Amino acid sequence: MDNLHIIGYLGVFVFAVIGVLKARTKRFDIFGAAVLAFVTAYGGGTIRDLLIGIKPVNWVNDNLAVFIVLLSTVITFFFKLNNTIIRKLIFWIDAFGIGLFTIVGIQTALKADVSQGYSLIMGIITATFGGLISDVLCNKVPNLLKPGELYATACIVGGSLYLLMINYHINTTTSMIVGILVTVVVRIFSIRRKLQLPRI
Amino acid sequence: MDNLHIIGYLGVFVFAVIGVLKARTKRFDIFGAAVLAFVTAYGGGTIRDLLIGIKPVNWVNDNLAVFIVLLSTVITFFFKLNNTIIRKLIFWIDAFGIGLFTIVGIQTALKADVSQGYSLIMGIITATFGGLISDVLCNKVPNLLKPGELYATACIVGGSLYLLMINYHINTTTSMIVGILVTVVVRIFSIRRKLQLPRI
Amino acid sequence: MDNLHIIGYLGVFVFAVIGVLKARTKRFDIFGAAVLAFVTAYGGGTIRDLLIGIKPVNWVNDNLAVFIVLLSTVITFFFKLNNTIIRKLIFWIDAFGIGLFTIVGIQTALKADVSQGYSLIMGIITATFGGLISDVLCNKVPNLLKPGELYATACIVGGSLYLLMINYHINTTTSMIVGILVTVVVRIFSIRRKLQLPRI
Repeated sequence: MDNLHIIGYLGVFVFAVIGVLKARTKRFDIFGAAVLAFVTAYGGGTIRDLLIGIKPVNWVNDNLAVFIVLLSTVITFFFKLNNTIIRKLIFWIDAFGIGLFTIVGIQTALKADVSQGYSLIMGIITATFGGLISDVLCNKVPNLLKPGELYATACIVGGSLYLLMINYHINTTTSMIVGILVTVVVRIFSIRRKLQLPRI
Repeated sequence: MDNLHIIGYLGVFVFAVIGVLKARTKRFDIFGAAVLAFVTAYGGGTIRDLLIGIKPVNWVNDNLAVFIVLLSTVITFFFKLNNTIIRKLIFWIDAFGIGLFTIVGIQTALKADVSQGYSLIMGIITATFGGLISDVLCNKVPNLLKPGELYATACIVGGSLYLLMINYHINTTTSMIVGILVTVVVRIFSIRRKLQLPRI
Repeated sequence: MDNLHIIGYLGVFVFAVIGVLKARTKRFDIFGAAVLAFVTAYGGGTIRDLLIGIKPVNWVNDNLAVFIVLLSTVITFFFKLNNTIIRKLIFWIDAFGIGLFTIVGIQTALKADVSQGYSLIMGIITATFGGLISDVLCNKVPNLLKPGELYATACIVGGSLYLLMINYHINTTTSMIVGILVTVVVRIFSIRRKLQLPRI
């Protein structure tokens, strides 16, 4: 459980970095960057909690949440991150992050008596709606909705597999690891092969 | 009651179609289209439930909701709908849909001890905020706010009449039918006469 | 307490005026203007209540809320307000309004068992997110996030001082007055000196 929390905050850190990088392209000041970082990292879980009716929303009163987002903001804001290696690292941790957030979202929903199908939807919302809201705040059409990389699709595949495995009473930790890894693999594979969903 | 539910899902279907048509103009892929369909169909009721404090939000655990939205997405996505007759049909069912959603929204709010005035507001939110959110996601100024057709106004007239009638203890079904029909009539009439609200 | 409520509604009135002025630049009709006025005035408090889990949201069933917003909409919509004196008056009452909304937001959050740090965040959200949402509805990048005037920063300074004072058991009314005045002073001072937060 402790390991899980550490990994969760690692995901939050990376999502916050992605938010600050977005804020940079819009030339926000440091307050705007911190808001966008927070929204990117916690927006998805917030929407999930609101829809399910968990109150207060998960991050309220979690001092580590604010600390990690601010730390991530300051680091990204004042240092250059356009190093290729760091970019690659961000891509990998992000892929890992959406996998983890999908599973955490599913678990949270199941615990709140949401059905399996809707728990999958809540998992996808947890993983992807932070980016969606931050895109809206940057006055862009959300990347999530535009054709391109398989982002949500990776979450759907990984999340479905996780649900399937726990239905067959496979150990939770094993199911989590497989679910996350499959999300990462689908994500990487789709980028390599330039796979896309059908469009008009 | 069963009839009412069938009619309600018909409204959801049409609202979802409208969402997919919007997604088409933005060239989203099928996942983006499904998200926009869901938001258009259920966004208004979701905002209403959040404001009133109904938890979980109405569509969570309703498998038919997801099914209808996906069905509507697939049909609209892969088939051409620019046939004039189908367009007209959509316009009529949409006019009927906002009337119905207004009444359903009012009833839901009244049941949750919201005052009559605010129940009217909740009815209008139920009928119109799905379109508003989907416009925001498409990075457009919401049609609802722009001058043009009398959309919300039709809901206000129909919804007010419904409230007036139930205050005079007129039978609920009769009040509903009159409220919905008046909404449709105001909507059609305003289009024919090109009526608009005052602007600067 | 009565005085506080009157002052609160004065803030709502001014925030609503600001919303209508925004609607004017987008040439919305009177319905669109009223929606934008309501969102600007009550959006921040709504987000705060949703995040904390206060239900229903504060303005539901408050008839004065709708009345003040509509009054403010009609006055601003039909009369010209580009008089320099009135513009200055709006600036001052707005500065006062964000100070007041920050304190009210903090108090509401503390009463709902939110920690001091997060109560400060809730105060800032109360004061600033109405403007943020109305900017999103106008399809603009929110002013709150863009570099420029110290808006949120003024709230942070005033709100922090308020929290500090009540921690030292200073009388609530005194703490409120000091918190609001400091917010106003920081706001005015930053405009005069053209102070800005660091950006890239």
